[in-house]
Amino acid sequence: MATPVTPPRGMRDFLPADKAVREHALGVIRQSFSAHGFDEIETPVMEDSARLHSGLGGDNEKLAFAVMKRGLKATDVAAAVEQDDLLSLADLGLRFDLTVPLARFYATHRAELPTVFRSIQIAPVWRAERPQKGRYRQFVQCDIDIIGEAGSLAEIELITATAATLDTLGLVGCSIRINDRRILSTMLGHWGVAADLTERALITIDKLDKIGVDGVVTELGGLGIDTAGIADTLHTLGGSGWDLGSDVPEWLDQAAFADLLALRAAMPRVDLVFDPTLVRGMGYYTGTIFEISHPTLGYSLGGGGRYDGMIGRFLGTDVPACGFSIGFERIVDLLGRDAASAADAVVLVHSADADPAHLVQLKTALVADGLRVRLERRTKNLKALLDRAAEAGFGRFAFVTDDTTTAAELEFKALGA
Amino acid sequence: MATPVTPPRGMRDFLPADKAVREHALGVIRQSFSAHGFDEIETPVMEDSARLHSGLGGDNEKLAFAVMKRGLKATDVAAAVEQDDLLSLADLGLRFDLTVPLARFYATHRAELPTVFRSIQIAPVWRAERPQKGRYRQFVQCDIDIIGEAGSLAEIELITATAATLDTLGLVGCSIRINDRRILSTMLGHWGVAADLTERALITIDKLDKIGVDGVVTELGGLGIDTAGIADTLHTLGGSGWDLGSDVPEWLDQAAFADLLALRAAMPRVDLVFDPTLVRGMGYYTGTIFEISHPTLGYSLGGGGRYDGMIGRFLGTDVPACGFSIGFERIVDLLGRDAASAADAVVLVHSADADPAHLVQLKTALVADGLRVRLERRTKNLKALLDRAAEAGFGRFAFVTDDTTTAAELEFKALGA
Repeated sequence: MATPVTPPRGMRDFLPADKAVREHALGVIRQSFSAHGFDEIETPVMEDSARLHSGLGGDNEKLAFAVMKRGLKATDVAAAVEQDDLLSLADLGLRFDLTVPLARFYATHRAELPTVFRSIQIAPVWRAERPQKGRYRQFVQCDIDIIGEAGSLAEIELITATAATLDTLGLVGCSIRINDRRILSTMLGHWGVAADLTERALITIDKLDKIGVDGVVTELGGLGIDTAGIADTLHTLGGSGWDLGSDVPEWLDQAAFADLLALRAAMPRVDLVFDPTLVRGMGYYTGTIFEISHPTLGYSLGGGGRYDGMIGRFLGTDVPACGFSIGFERIVDLLGRDAASAADAVVLVHSADADPAHLVQLKTALVADGLRVRLERRTKNLKALLDRAAEAGFGRFAFVTDDTTTAAELEFKALGA
Repeated sequence: MATPVTPPRGMRDFLPADKAVREHALGVIRQSFSAHGFDEIETPVMEDSARLHSGLGGDNEKLAFAVMKRGLKATDVAAAVEQDDLLSLADLGLRFDLTVPLARFYATHRAELPTVFRSIQIAPVWRAERPQKGRYRQFVQCDIDIIGEAGSLAEIELITATAATLDTLGLVGCSIRINDRRILSTMLGHWGVAADLTERALITIDKLDKIGVDGVVTELGGLGIDTAGIADTLHTLGGSGWDLGSDVPEWLDQAAFADLLALRAAMPRVDLVFDPTLVRGMGYYTGTIFEISHPTLGYSLGGGGRYDGMIGRFLGTDVPACGFSIGFERIVDLLGRDAASAADAVVLVHSADADPAHLVQLKTALVADGLRVRLERRTKNLKALLDRAAEAGFGRFAFVTDDTTTAAELEFKALGA
């Protein structure tokens, strides 16, 4: 079996240097969300197939990895073929997002949770997408959600906590684009878009970044929508921001816009940008929607919004909810490797015949002093060994020359200096 | 869909209090292993079915959750039934341990790794076992492994790091039982156990804790083994420990025993107990084996050993390897909830009509001062609210009485005092 071996298609191994960056970033995110009063929870990676395919996950449902029933017999399988129901061969599936599991979790544990529940979920999800650059079949999402708060306090806490977390990670210059589904609705109504075309029209507007105003107008026309005036509206809106001046469009939902202005006033330190063409893909959003923009990137670093109807689908009663998700894989790509604590990480270089008991005694003494300690057997190419240690984040090294050296006698030299 | 909703069978949700204990323990383990010079890596939760079912996983292979091929057609499925090969419907599976993925990872990345590679893996695994108390279908393992070190330095570093980690977690009184597969082999040879019965005899001896000496002798007899003298040997061995005195059994592998004595001498601070009947289930162990015992528990808290043949199966060349795995779920059950930082966690109780902007401004100021801050809307039952906050680890609270209070003016009182 000496053939080339790789991880499954679209999935990644993480070597020590990358894993260290990831764990550092996860620690920062976890600590920051927690300081802002959110509580971390965890759910199993699998959920019942029926729940994953209940319609709440939108297009992502089609991308779920299905887990086969255990102990299937040939007759069961033949029956599934007969009944044209291959999905019945799977009883479980891997989650494709953290929102459907959160809704299920809340329904299971509502009695044990506070009236207003602020959750953190930091965990992998899986989607059987065609792998491409920057898109993986296993990736980590970092979600915060507030369940049970109908007022704008939810949006303010979510956006404040997320903006503070991005700051702490050292991602400067991020802004948060914001809109409200109600504004999109009245805009479409003004354009005369029929109710049954709403979803498809929104999907088209969502492509504005990629296909431009002309592309959007062409696609809307293709749906049979009268596009007179749409191009003008889109051009005007694009540059307007908060300052609509005297040109407040007649179709603008004034109540929704006033709510957005209030959010902006409540968060003077967050760079909040009004974008009336922001759509966000998921069909379950009911009010405010937002997305993280970075000045040098053509894609968003995360987003969220209010989804008041969704939790109720599992619970049988309506519960307000709002959430914000950070796209961890995109963010971690922007972070540098952290070499801050290198001086506390030391390498002890020893000969092949050194006494193991003595080596571990030295190591234990140094660990007790708060150091990170790596033993390295001396190789012919000492320089390569030391270079690799420096690359791995170690800052100093010493030779263990005989079996009686004490920790105090070690002479440390700087690595990679 | 307002029916009772639960996580899938045998899998668990973690509420905030439990999740906090888990993350705290994972942080301690990660930090301790890292200080001892190990490097954390990560692999995808899925591996190719062929690799999971290559025989390296022993009985656990039968417990793997199988992931269905995407885009299966009825004709594919009918063909699988026809050919009596239902496994062909799955191309991936969820890992059932961290050792098979580590062997695959090492084969994939050997050129990028140091000659002696010390890995940390802290991650969930999945087994479709019949759920029972303390046994779950998704659970976390914490493994350290040293690949490329044939000498006893590997065992010494692994056992030292694990013992130090248990100490840091506050688990006092743990001892580590140790044995060598070579000792078991010569013991079975002395008893005249035929080579083809070796594995089954070892499985029986492994049950000594549960079924006692008489049970073991009866089972061995049932296999057709001549059991004369076996009961005596087992009774004598049970109480002997390291001090075999003048009664050194003639069958004892002297070289293996000398190696164990050297390990003991190298780790004077670790409570290392010689147990010649320690087996460890996995068939791939080739030398030293060890297991963590706790004085009040009837089960082990983890274990490991040397498995020199296994990595080579993926690589086509032999590489020495040794590993130690902590049973995270069992350990976390022994830990108390950590209330150390409660004084730094505060609750702001506000009225329903408080200004959200003002509340978040107060919260942001306190977070900037290093506090963890939770907003709570005042409810009729204030006592219940405060009790729940204390339970959730918050140490102080203050009322926000009007919309002009500054952070400095808040009057904090102790919670749950």
